[in-house]
Amino acid sequence: MTDFSTGYFTMTEKEALEYAKTQLDFFTSDAQLSCKEIGDGNLNYVFKVVDSKRNKSIIIKQAGPVARISDEFKVSPDRNRIESEILQIQAKFAEKFVPKLYHYDTVMNCCAMEDLSDHEIMRAELMKHKKFPLFAEHITTFMVNTLVQTSDVVLDHKQKKELVKSFINPDLCEISEDLVYTEPFYDCPRNDVFEESKDFVKEHIWGDDKLALETAKLKFEFMTNAQALIHGDLHTGSVFIKEDSTKVIDPEFAFFGPIGYDVGNVVANLIFAYANARFTIEDEAERNDYLAYLETTITDVVDLFKEKFEVAWDEHATERVANYNGFKAHYLDLILRDTAAVAGLELSRRIIGLAHVADITSITDVDKRAQAERICLSASKKFILERESVKCGEDYINIIRAFEQQVTLEV
Amino acid sequence: MTDFSTGYFTMTEKEALEYAKTQLDFFTSDAQLSCKEIGDGNLNYVFKVVDSKRNKSIIIKQAGPVARISDEFKVSPDRNRIESEILQIQAKFAEKFVPKLYHYDTVMNCCAMEDLSDHEIMRAELMKHKKFPLFAEHITTFMVNTLVQTSDVVLDHKQKKELVKSFINPDLCEISEDLVYTEPFYDCPRNDVFEESKDFVKEHIWGDDKLALETAKLKFEFMTNAQALIHGDLHTGSVFIKEDSTKVIDPEFAFFGPIGYDVGNVVANLIFAYANARFTIEDEAERNDYLAYLETTITDVVDLFKEKFEVAWDEHATERVANYNGFKAHYLDLILRDTAAVAGLELSRRIIGLAHVADITSITDVDKRAQAERICLSASKKFILERESVKCGEDYINIIRAFEQQVTLEV
Repeated sequence: MTDFSTGYFTMTEKEALEYAKTQLDFFTSDAQLSCKEIGDGNLNYVFKVVDSKRNKSIIIKQAGPVARISDEFKVSPDRNRIESEILQIQAKFAEKFVPKLYHYDTVMNCCAMEDLSDHEIMRAELMKHKKFPLFAEHITTFMVNTLVQTSDVVLDHKQKKELVKSFINPDLCEISEDLVYTEPFYDCPRNDVFEESKDFVKEHIWGDDKLALETAKLKFEFMTNAQALIHGDLHTGSVFIKEDSTKVIDPEFAFFGPIGYDVGNVVANLIFAYANARFTIEDEAERNDYLAYLETTITDVVDLFKEKFEVAWDEHATERVANYNGFKAHYLDLILRDTAAVAGLELSRRIIGLAHVADITSITDVDKRAQAERICLSASKKFILERESVKCGEDYINIIRAFEQQVTLEV
Repeated sequence: MTDFSTGYFTMTEKEALEYAKTQLDFFTSDAQLSCKEIGDGNLNYVFKVVDSKRNKSIIIKQAGPVARISDEFKVSPDRNRIESEILQIQAKFAEKFVPKLYHYDTVMNCCAMEDLSDHEIMRAELMKHKKFPLFAEHITTFMVNTLVQTSDVVLDHKQKKELVKSFINPDLCEISEDLVYTEPFYDCPRNDVFEESKDFVKEHIWGDDKLALETAKLKFEFMTNAQALIHGDLHTGSVFIKEDSTKVIDPEFAFFGPIGYDVGNVVANLIFAYANARFTIEDEAERNDYLAYLETTITDVVDLFKEKFEVAWDEHATERVANYNGFKAHYLDLILRDTAAVAGLELSRRIIGLAHVADITSITDVDKRAQAERICLSASKKFILERESVKCGEDYINIIRAFEQQVTLEV
């Protein structure tokens, strides 16, 4: 029998099965268990353990000792504690939208959570051009509830500071600081630029001093602004979805950072879905219909966030000065500015930097991919440079449409 | 014999003497020790232990279980760990300007440090209208060295995050959030307003919605902007001084906050000294001479800070994006904005709020004190509301002089 109590080691499928059997109070003793490692993420091992007798299953997620994305990133297995504790906090404020956590283990750096196999990864579904009409409603409730409740607007300031302390996240923040805020904006050896986009990137991104300056400002804001407990990696690959349910997973990047970081990531990844649909759906009517759905979703994410944010503020604010005339509007304004900037950063970094998105890389036609990238990069720049004036859903749509028209006319 | 190892208790003079004898490796066995509690601060007990035989002395500072300013503030004795660790970090970057730390004890929540009895508390000396021509030079070196070196500009980001974690300071930050950022700006029962200033405060401070809004913005910046390891209470009562030496003491409020918080506090407290001199020095020539000295000091604090800050940045910056065109200027600009705002907050809170300064309260002539307060409050408002345009030493002097003229002409 394996001893799971004496020290950390990365589990095999067999050991994870044994772990499920002996360490969790989840399966019955006569369960017929099988186990499979299903992780396709970059940082963790994900084991699915199934009892075929009762059709019950559970996920065991274990932090690897080194990030799987690349040996260059050493990330502490402490992120599993962070993930488990965050899931509990998120469940407190937005129970419907996160997987249920059953167990976590600080020796083995693993946790056991609800199996969401009846859900699908949202990015893959969007690439199949499926619609999720409830997504904007769901994700904005998730964001508003988790973010407003963990900010100084609502949370007792001393309690908040204790949380800030326990979610200081040096390793994972370093990844974002490097991959999102720094490397994409200069000719860094670790970048991975599509051949057909190189000239554009050199001229319009790396060649632009004003853009570089703005990314520097944003990087320092990311490093210093402990606004709320953000998810920190809220792209469509961190969302499990089905028609009537949205579950946000993988909060291991969580820390106290700018609220707009989460909102901007959602928006940018919907724009990637838009770029994918624009260049891969052949049938015009079908394409326009799907693009219209995505436009509505992008618009709703921004506008419902604003709407719900104001309601949550009015309902939950405990901080005296939060009620001063004009302060709510000022605070929301800063979030929207950050949202635009982060949407811009994400659009560039997923095209120029080390970690790409399948929405773009799966566009097999070279010219079409180049066009898709150019639209995203142009919008990226505008979102960053003009972040003060991108304030509602429609502003995003207008910018994307304008560059879509410009880029496709140029060809 | 007293057992100091089993648990925290507040020491009497006798116990502190015994502590010095048995717990410190400082005095020889034949020392002839005496001990006196000399604390006049609000949070701690300060014992001076003297060996009359060898003319050697040491300070033992112990955190009380409750802040002595008022029973309403419960502050954790952990602040003594914070103080001791901060003194070590400050010594690393600015050794000349902090007392030497000999020992610290996490059970008794006390530390032993260099006795600075040959120095005097700066506020008291300024009230005697003494000059310290090296102060601006010293304090700007202290600030630039401790602040730039602990910011993300220089410090490795992961190391910085570990420091942020260990200097989360909920109790002491709460005091500043309440006493500096909130209570002075509304009719809070805990305020303590001089009778002759009440109408002015009601109309110009509490009655101004725009001012309230700006204080709300600043409060949230104070709570969320983890820019550098600031002293957090850098007024002239936290400075021990003699002609050729400046020592910054009492860093128990330290945490990662806005750099401008330290600079602004120094400036504001020099302005209090100015207001004191303006209304208490009878002889005109003598008064003008001392005011000119204070003007030079205020100007130098701001301008030397800027100058040395730029030099330190050029010399020590390790962060790649810190070298982007325009970023240093942008960063310094934000510090100067915060400096003006904090100078403004400090000027108001020491006149309206719970904790006053002797520079003002010692002005015995009622009319003169009212004038001094009005000058400070008027400058306070302008510094807060127009913080974007207060950028150099001369800007401060011009504002103070203008209000001085206005207020004294009105009489």
